Amino acid sequence: MISGSTTPNLLKVAIIGGYGHFECAFEDSRHREVFHICGIAPGRVGEPIENVVDLARQSGLCPEIYSTPMDLFNEIQPDVALVTCRFSDHAQIIGEALARGIHVLSEKPLATNWEDFQQLQHAYAQGNSQLSALFTMRYIPEMYTLANFVLSGGIGDVYSVQAQKSYKLGTRPTFFQERTSHGGLIPWVGSHTIDLICWLSNREVTHVRAWHSKAGAKKTGDLEMLAHIHCSLEGDCFGSAHLDYMRPEQAATHGDDRVRVLGADGIAEVQGGIARVIRNGNEEILSGSDAPNILMDFIDQIKGKGACRVSADDAFRATRICLTARDSADLGKEIEL
Amino acid sequence: MISGSTTPNLLKVAIIGGYGHFECAFEDSRHREVFHICGIAPGRVGEPIENVVDLARQSGLCPEIYSTPMDLFNEIQPDVALVTCRFSDHAQIIGEALARGIHVLSEKPLATNWEDFQQLQHAYAQGNSQLSALFTMRYIPEMYTLANFVLSGGIGDVYSVQAQKSYKLGTRPTFFQERTSHGGLIPWVGSHTIDLICWLSNREVTHVRAWHSKAGAKKTGDLEMLAHIHCSLEGDCFGSAHLDYMRPEQAATHGDDRVRVLGADGIAEVQGGIARVIRNGNEEILSGSDAPNILMDFIDQIKGKGACRVSADDAFRATRICLTARDSADLGKEIEL
Repeated sequence: MISGSTTPNLLKVAIIGGYGHFECAFEDSRHREVFHICGIAPGRVGEPIENVVDLARQSGLCPEIYSTPMDLFNEIQPDVALVTCRFSDHAQIIGEALARGIHVLSEKPLATNWEDFQQLQHAYAQGNSQLSALFTMRYIPEMYTLANFVLSGGIGDVYSVQAQKSYKLGTRPTFFQERTSHGGLIPWVGSHTIDLICWLSNREVTHVRAWHSKAGAKKTGDLEMLAHIHCSLEGDCFGSAHLDYMRPEQAATHGDDRVRVLGADGIAEVQGGIARVIRNGNEEILSGSDAPNILMDFIDQIKGKGACRVSADDAFRATRICLTARDSADLGKEIEL
Repeated sequence: MISGSTTPNLLKVAIIGGYGHFECAFEDSRHREVFHICGIAPGRVGEPIENVVDLARQSGLCPEIYSTPMDLFNEIQPDVALVTCRFSDHAQIIGEALARGIHVLSEKPLATNWEDFQQLQHAYAQGNSQLSALFTMRYIPEMYTLANFVLSGGIGDVYSVQAQKSYKLGTRPTFFQERTSHGGLIPWVGSHTIDLICWLSNREVTHVRAWHSKAGAKKTGDLEMLAHIHCSLEGDCFGSAHLDYMRPEQAATHGDDRVRVLGADGIAEVQGGIARVIRNGNEEILSGSDAPNILMDFIDQIKGKGACRVSADDAFRATRICLTARDSADLGKEIEL
């Protein structure tokens, strides 16, 4: 086994919590030349992190385990915190990291309520740390391919983006059952779709109207099973997102992610893991591009090697729109951003 | 050639206008035992009806041609008027037919403005004629199959219906370019999706919020290129429709119609002409059912042989919701029905 703290010129990455995409710290073999996992802690005392520890060990690593993020931050002062804990704890832990000069790649949403959101904006503005969010959909090969095509003008100006995320409910941690600890379907699942709508349209959302419900729910407490979100964007552009946990348990795949983009010169979409485009004279499958690893992309930015695909502004923007959309659904009215 | 007026015990069907699904009068060979085409007229003087006359002749028929619907109605007193003319003329022509005791199968929407809509409701209530609308999507084999499955409880209670109609703009008659003669994208194309949302959910719409725009338009006057419609329905059910004329001209098919229905026990959808369902333990393509011909279905109702799949109430409901949705998009606000 390789010890958790080997070469001193490697960046120190700490993993906080085991509920999100912590696997990004292990999936790119280049990481051994760039960073090491200096420690793992739960987001709060007692939270399970066995899945992270197991994955680290499978990768031949034996990082230190801490009881709380603050113990870890204070003792090791990592360079980067990868925050993937209980969703309502994101904001406070990100804030603590930023206050210590630690760069943060966090699960979305950055915050699950407005008070936390505002405090976090303030903490970020006060410090010099860099911040990004785990909008992993941007790094899925077919989505990366689609975005490269659309953002380079492949279908002209974009006027509509539709995004779908349909998931199996499966067995979720109990904290999913409470709004105060989970945040709701729209901020958790929907933030990906909001990010895609903003990213692929390259426009700003001006108004949002969302609807959500627990209809069809089976003992899931506060958790919504279903949501529709509509965004109006600058320049006569519209976005729609459809989210649900109603995908049958025995479906072939866990999720059914789709995106459809209407441009002045064509239509591009992702469905079933394939990116397609229809333009005049052409109806083709886009050949896949190698997407970077999201954590390596963020670390490249920290090292001054270009911009991470998800900027801090992108992360705050998606969080702000999601909290607004959740308010819209709760209040039953459209909200201007 | 067979003359247009042969056996007297056949129902007399008149075709008014050549802009819609008049082909339904010719596509079912049973029609020769049930009705004959007694005459054809344009919706207004000078409107082209060569396409209808040609199709009649290809079918070996030689119906009388009239200059106006009223000439035809007064002279022949048909049993049924198939109204497929300029959209803004539907209401008046339907009203004239109803006033003469003629049954009407009309293109949707029944009316393109509220004044016409209210007059038509009154005319229908005053008479004894039967009325239906050309919601042809209900009769497309894969949609018919899907609906049979969903409405028989195949996926349990329905909580969400998403519908898409994406079309090539192609070359449209000039009357498409004016709101007053065309009615707009939402009433024309969108009425199909509104009807599907109501039909497949078997619930009533309570609120609608729609958005439309001419973005990306190429010399199409008032015509919208794109719309998103959201419906809230009774029982925590939601509907979304996405309409556009932005399908590239060289795409493989003229249209790309899709429907996705979320139920408590599964997901059913139509895409690419195929109906699929995912339920627990099952992910399958639904085998096609023979859908009836829409005009024959209406005529069966006239003859007392069961109910046409599209009732007069269905036709008025979809028209009312579409006009409300168009108002919503024009006014930029949600409207309660």
